[in-house]
Amino acid sequence: MTPPVVILVRPQLAENIGMCARAMLNFGLTEMRLVAPRDGWPKKGARQASSGASIVLDTVKLFETTQDAIADLNKVYATTARERGQMKPIFAADEAATNVRTLADVDLRTGILFGPERMGLSNDDVALADALISFPVNPDFSSINLAQSVLLVGYEWWKLISGGQAPIAPTRSSPPAKREHVLAFLDYLEAQLDEAAFFNPIEKRAIMVRNMRNIWHRLEMTEQDVQTLRGAVSALVVGRRGRNASKNGS
Amino acid sequence: MTPPVVILVRPQLAENIGMCARAMLNFGLTEMRLVAPRDGWPKKGARQASSGASIVLDTVKLFETTQDAIADLNKVYATTARERGQMKPIFAADEAATNVRTLADVDLRTGILFGPERMGLSNDDVALADALISFPVNPDFSSINLAQSVLLVGYEWWKLISGGQAPIAPTRSSPPAKREHVLAFLDYLEAQLDEAAFFNPIEKRAIMVRNMRNIWHRLEMTEQDVQTLRGAVSALVVGRRGRNASKNGS
Repeated sequence: MTPPVVILVRPQLAENIGMCARAMLNFGLTEMRLVAPRDGWPKKGARQASSGASIVLDTVKLFETTQDAIADLNKVYATTARERGQMKPIFAADEAATNVRTLADVDLRTGILFGPERMGLSNDDVALADALISFPVNPDFSSINLAQSVLLVGYEWWKLISGGQAPIAPTRSSPPAKREHVLAFLDYLEAQLDEAAFFNPIEKRAIMVRNMRNIWHRLEMTEQDVQTLRGAVSALVVGRRGRNASKNGS
Repeated sequence: MTPPVVILVRPQLAENIGMCARAMLNFGLTEMRLVAPRDGWPKKGARQASSGASIVLDTVKLFETTQDAIADLNKVYATTARERGQMKPIFAADEAATNVRTLADVDLRTGILFGPERMGLSNDDVALADALISFPVNPDFSSINLAQSVLLVGYEWWKLISGGQAPIAPTRSSPPAKREHVLAFLDYLEAQLDEAAFFNPIEKRAIMVRNMRNIWHRLEMTEQDVQTLRGAVSALVVGRRGRNASKNGS
């Protein structure tokens, strides 16, 4: 049973990274990824704060971008205390743990994004996720420490695993697409839309792209879906080109 | 509904006391008692570590002995990772929260004991309790940070009180689209794909259409989504036509 990957995006303090490693190992999570830690990596202070969770720190993987850090994963959650207006499904940590296990049962991998200590994940990072995790919390004091957030995710995971309930696994004919395939499709689509002058006015392109990507992310595309949709877009572009060429040519 | 009292027995570091205060307030616990804190009280460092949980720190009560600290309570739990051979009932944190609430319903008060950072509660402290709380945890790495233990107790309490749902829900900027608008979009898309000779071989058109419609239906499109996607398809078709026309014309 593969536990979820913990991805710390732009964490600030090495001590917090160490405390996250400890919290992870308390609940059987061992794979930590760091995206652009503020003070570099490895960094003094992390190991002591981990209280012996060396198995986690020794295997940390370092990435420059969130997109790189999630490329090989099949499903991505973003933790947030605030609604982001991105129309993504929102789960409590126990519900998310159930979803993670359902995927792990068929060897599919999930990653969970955690933002920097002060400000949390950026909207662009959140946009990369399929769904959100938000903890039930006192609405008058809702800012949870980074390692505490990691702990709650690990705790719910371990509760589920050690409790031994039988999960119901929906069958999937094709696995959830790898992020890199989804993102390559979106890049292709947007390039075609650029050529077609769809993004208008151009200064709104960034927000239009994000909004449209959020539409696509809701699909939770399978590999087969990506191929089908890419084929459809390509047909619209190339088929039209061919028709126009033959209409106008010779 | 009166939450449980958090009692820190001989805590060592002021920072940890502050982090406990923060974890408490995150989940609606406000009453903290300290038994013989090693470095005295109040102590510099606690407030900053609390990240603004002043309501907790301002009302801390100080005691010399654990016995004094629990005098006015009706029920006492001790948190421990080890079985103490004291024949006390042992609960997970969620079960304990249920018990606490049952008592609170009839105005009875519960306290939960947490031991010092390094060694946990003494057997004498454990002996003062009615029952134990022990967290489900990785047996190979079971030492949980003090503030993390407090957090888990608070989390299970708040989950119970609040119903445990994620505290935020996705906003919908636009209502779910009417079926006729969705179907009109799909008709339009398929007509364009017909022109582009996408459905190939043609005898598979019916099943290809059905499969692609099933992809789109998963989107649960809003009116805004339908407009956006129709615009995107149209741009791919018309923009290409325009470009080809100007490229080939005159």
